[in-house]
Amino acid sequence: MAPFPLSRLEDLLTLPLPAPDPAAREGAVARQAQLTKPPGSLGRLEELALFMAAWRGNDRPRIDRAQALVFAGNHGVCAQGVNPFPQAVTALMVANFAAGGAAINQLCAVAGADLRVVPLDLERPTADITQGPAMPAAEALAAFNTGAAAVDPGADVLVLGEMGIGNSTISAALAQAVFGGAAADWVGPGTGADAAGMAQKAAVVERAVARHAGLAPLALLAALGGREQAALCGAVLAARMARIPVLLDGFICSAAVAPLHGARPEVLDHCLIAHQSAEPGHARLAAALGKAPLLSLGMALGEGTGAALALNVLRGALACHNGMATFAEAGITA
Amino acid sequence: MAPFPLSRLEDLLTLPLPAPDPAAREGAVARQAQLTKPPGSLGRLEELALFMAAWRGNDRPRIDRAQALVFAGNHGVCAQGVNPFPQAVTALMVANFAAGGAAINQLCAVAGADLRVVPLDLERPTADITQGPAMPAAEALAAFNTGAAAVDPGADVLVLGEMGIGNSTISAALAQAVFGGAAADWVGPGTGADAAGMAQKAAVVERAVARHAGLAPLALLAALGGREQAALCGAVLAARMARIPVLLDGFICSAAVAPLHGARPEVLDHCLIAHQSAEPGHARLAAALGKAPLLSLGMALGEGTGAALALNVLRGALACHNGMATFAEAGITA
Repeated sequence: MAPFPLSRLEDLLTLPLPAPDPAAREGAVARQAQLTKPPGSLGRLEELALFMAAWRGNDRPRIDRAQALVFAGNHGVCAQGVNPFPQAVTALMVANFAAGGAAINQLCAVAGADLRVVPLDLERPTADITQGPAMPAAEALAAFNTGAAAVDPGADVLVLGEMGIGNSTISAALAQAVFGGAAADWVGPGTGADAAGMAQKAAVVERAVARHAGLAPLALLAALGGREQAALCGAVLAARMARIPVLLDGFICSAAVAPLHGARPEVLDHCLIAHQSAEPGHARLAAALGKAPLLSLGMALGEGTGAALALNVLRGALACHNGMATFAEAGITA
Repeated sequence: MAPFPLSRLEDLLTLPLPAPDPAAREGAVARQAQLTKPPGSLGRLEELALFMAAWRGNDRPRIDRAQALVFAGNHGVCAQGVNPFPQAVTALMVANFAAGGAAINQLCAVAGADLRVVPLDLERPTADITQGPAMPAAEALAAFNTGAAAVDPGADVLVLGEMGIGNSTISAALAQAVFGGAAADWVGPGTGADAAGMAQKAAVVERAVARHAGLAPLALLAALGGREQAALCGAVLAARMARIPVLLDGFICSAAVAPLHGARPEVLDHCLIAHQSAEPGHARLAAALGKAPLLSLGMALGEGTGAALALNVLRGALACHNGMATFAEAGITA
């Protein structure tokens, strides 16, 4: 059974993880070979069908329930002037989500996903990571467990997104701390930093990462992360325990799970990266995670917008897998 | 009013063409600037909203009706052994479309498009283009007019696709004849040619293009094309006259409209390329047409499958454009 709430983040290092179901995958492979199309001609749609079959343990997997979760947090690093927007915008956007006025509301409606937004202590930003840890380990654990508890165990797929003024800086710090390189490799314009703003962000990230050097990957969540990053990790693990495939949105979500990858890469085997962000560090980050984004539409909004769009592709993949005629059914012998 | 049926293909060279509506576009630009997101953060979704606004003449464009048209034809060039499937498969696949069993049926259902399939004299393949013109000019014109007449003038967007055993060879020939280069630049595996098959295809294309060298671009439709290629061109022009934006599927559809581009490039201004085909010549072809495909999912099936998937992206773009709150509505002043 699901082990939540975890009593220590480190428990996930040894947790037995559900694996993809080889028999369901083989059944899906056999079906794909019979469908009325040249082999391989549906490209990534075929991969997606097999991926869903394996994780759902069903050679004809369906999406009856799609859940979208958006976690929101505030960040003390904003004191370093890394963002042109004030932190109050995070709560205003959460209100906008609740009122149905944000991009993610519209895209969830188009893709048929149930959206739930989880604000995490917005009135109490994490600490400035250039000055000390973002939060005590117990707070990161609590946010992780909140994220895990938000997952609907009856969902067939989970769309993950986030909102948090300042979190592209946090994300660059997590990426650098886990995967190395220079801060400038991971820093981008975020919600609209100019060249001077990006140089400032890079200096801040470099300093923060240096201050917290030498920590184990999971400890980075408390040291450099935010509550929404910890919650995203919790949701990813809870989805895994329920064999629910995950669509990670873009740069921020990819960086949020970097500590999981650093600690135990196979924890992310049930996750796809939905959209290649316009944020310049995302290509490197996706490669470091070993995942090829499904879409590349020049977006950099977060909120789960890229993941909600990719849900339509996943629906298309399963519609073809389940709905197409076989060569025999169509009377085609080639 | 729409000038169909055309009495000569060349009439389209001088036909007055509807232009995008600058006022509607400006209205949409102004709205985008007020929506609750950083400027530009929805990337190509923003471009799509402006594109739809301009062509539909409405700063809040909607998709109430989406039409998908699939044209099917057979090709005498199959006598040259360019395809592992027999030509009879074209008619069998048309029957599969009618029965709802093909990939395009499933993807139109997911995307909410009304599918119509138009077979064009399948029992009478065009002639072998290595031996002479594919068809008389009058036949190409008739297919063009059939394609034009199939367009629903009440549609808000048109998804175009095709089916025709042998038509990746025809497409390579059209691409080479319009845009130059060597046959090998445009030839790919199609429905499954191996290396020897591709070499054979390239030799066939090189011979066919040499035989019909020096023709005007529109004359290439009859010389090297097929009926489905001519019909696709007719549908594109009819959509333009009704200000209906077009989602072109992939390699075959892009090649089909190459003669229009060669004759009068602005005829394609209302067209998007939906999907970057796995067919290796498509990247070059899309660049020659000056269009960046929306999706790149490794597909190479045709039928309009990439275009139907991209329709979901277009729906998402308009849902955001029309449904998002403005900063003022959300009480956000930044």
